[in-house]
Amino acid sequence: MLNKVVIFGVGLIGGSFARALKQAGAVGHVVGMGRSPAPLARALELGIIDSVGADLAEALRGADLVLLAAPVAQTERILAALRPHLQPGTVVSDAGSTKGDVVAAARRALGGKLAQFVPGHPIAGRESNGPDAAIVDLYQGRKTVLTPLAENAAADVERVAAAWRACGAVIHRLTPAEHDRVFAAVSHLPHLLAYALVDDIANKAHADLLFQYAASGFRDFTRIAGSSPEMWRDISLANQAALLGELDAYMAQLTGLRAMLAAGDGAAIEAVYANAQRARQQWGAAIEAAEAPQPTDQAE
Amino acid sequence: MLNKVVIFGVGLIGGSFARALKQAGAVGHVVGMGRSPAPLARALELGIIDSVGADLAEALRGADLVLLAAPVAQTERILAALRPHLQPGTVVSDAGSTKGDVVAAARRALGGKLAQFVPGHPIAGRESNGPDAAIVDLYQGRKTVLTPLAENAAADVERVAAAWRACGAVIHRLTPAEHDRVFAAVSHLPHLLAYALVDDIANKAHADLLFQYAASGFRDFTRIAGSSPEMWRDISLANQAALLGELDAYMAQLTGLRAMLAAGDGAAIEAVYANAQRARQQWGAAIEAAEAPQPTDQAE
Repeated sequence: MLNKVVIFGVGLIGGSFARALKQAGAVGHVVGMGRSPAPLARALELGIIDSVGADLAEALRGADLVLLAAPVAQTERILAALRPHLQPGTVVSDAGSTKGDVVAAARRALGGKLAQFVPGHPIAGRESNGPDAAIVDLYQGRKTVLTPLAENAAADVERVAAAWRACGAVIHRLTPAEHDRVFAAVSHLPHLLAYALVDDIANKAHADLLFQYAASGFRDFTRIAGSSPEMWRDISLANQAALLGELDAYMAQLTGLRAMLAAGDGAAIEAVYANAQRARQQWGAAIEAAEAPQPTDQAE
Repeated sequence: MLNKVVIFGVGLIGGSFARALKQAGAVGHVVGMGRSPAPLARALELGIIDSVGADLAEALRGADLVLLAAPVAQTERILAALRPHLQPGTVVSDAGSTKGDVVAAARRALGGKLAQFVPGHPIAGRESNGPDAAIVDLYQGRKTVLTPLAENAAADVERVAAAWRACGAVIHRLTPAEHDRVFAAVSHLPHLLAYALVDDIANKAHADLLFQYAASGFRDFTRIAGSSPEMWRDISLANQAALLGELDAYMAQLTGLRAMLAAGDGAAIEAVYANAQRARQQWGAAIEAAEAPQPTDQAE
């Protein structure tokens, strides 16, 4: 049971975390923090938070857990502002999509209080945002990846893990570098590729004709190109090195496929397509099984 | 009203065409043709077809319309077999995903009877196949593209168009070359890109780790990589020239994005992502409106 939780950013991610904790009876009081008054007022109205924190020192006093769910670009600024008021009994975590840059920001901003910061990344999202988008079961059956630091106390990591478990999430652990390599491949690169395709088509002289005939395959393939450009610019830059590596590997793959196509080598093309189909079908079956509600924590 | 329709291939595409025609009361008798007896027997059992054509001459006698819905690679063989038995009053069409290669095959196979062939492409599909996958409303509100030949009589084109309209489809017209350029961009390239990504990931040493963290964005982006490798090998080769052109344009786009990312040029990256997001959102809204059931034929 957490007596007091402070959440920076009360939109989809932070608001759903608060709703789920409350639903589970896992929190006494939730304080909302943020730069804009309107979402905070709305979150209060919706019962997502119990109070709006006006003063940082007051908000942090006696807090068990602080979650940063504001845009990642604000992480260092928020952590630096927290530092003077951070009491020994408070654990801070975040929900950023990249971890190497967040850890670097935390090292700079928190100094001797770094041990109190346990980096995290809940693997969940929707296209909508803001307090009205927050739902109680956003994390149900989803993974939350924690990337603990050598400096973290085991009990502090467990406090963050327990909070996410109370939200229905399954806890996984990676190092920050592992995390960033994994998500460069399975998330950041696909976003870049989808944006690139839609931009490519939109810039053609006959774009209107092309879009007219795009159908369900195109719709699925490009759905992630409807995501926030600012957020994905930040993620791309924050994970620059790993994303460049994945992009280079992918471009080499395309160069290989292009040669097969130019040579009319149907057997080679089919081998690539068939390997992909097999892997995609296996993954699809596995993820369906994994995302069914689970009573126990798989990865710890 | 078509008295007699002959369908080669009674799976998802051909079977749904038959079901929709029957539902509309637009056909008297449907004859199923194919290489394997099992799907034909099943289609008969399901009431999709009224009889199985044993003899080609007999099946074609008095037919108003023949639809080729077998794999595209069989098109030339089937047309060549039809030719000696094709009566002057019969119109032949197809449902192939590429049109340039189909027209070339028809020119070779039909010779002096080429005018009786009206190429077509219904823009609809599902992941399932076979007679059991055939549904009455597969084409409802969807586009069917006809790519008529200079040799076609207007009345013959209209006979094919009217049949698809009876199935609920909206008729569009393109030249075969236009068709193939359009679908290279909005369908064939995305399939190649999705196969390439999944194959790329599946071949990495830590593929299992990567797939474990792939989530909903990856699921949508790679859904089309679950499609038939044989079918998409054939489509890729059949539309080789246009697909190579689109692939080259896309690789140039990726090269540009890679340079922005390597330079840490957030403004340039955001401009690409934002242009894509705007175009994707506009397209999404337009396609939702267009796919609502429509009483009239938009494009003719």
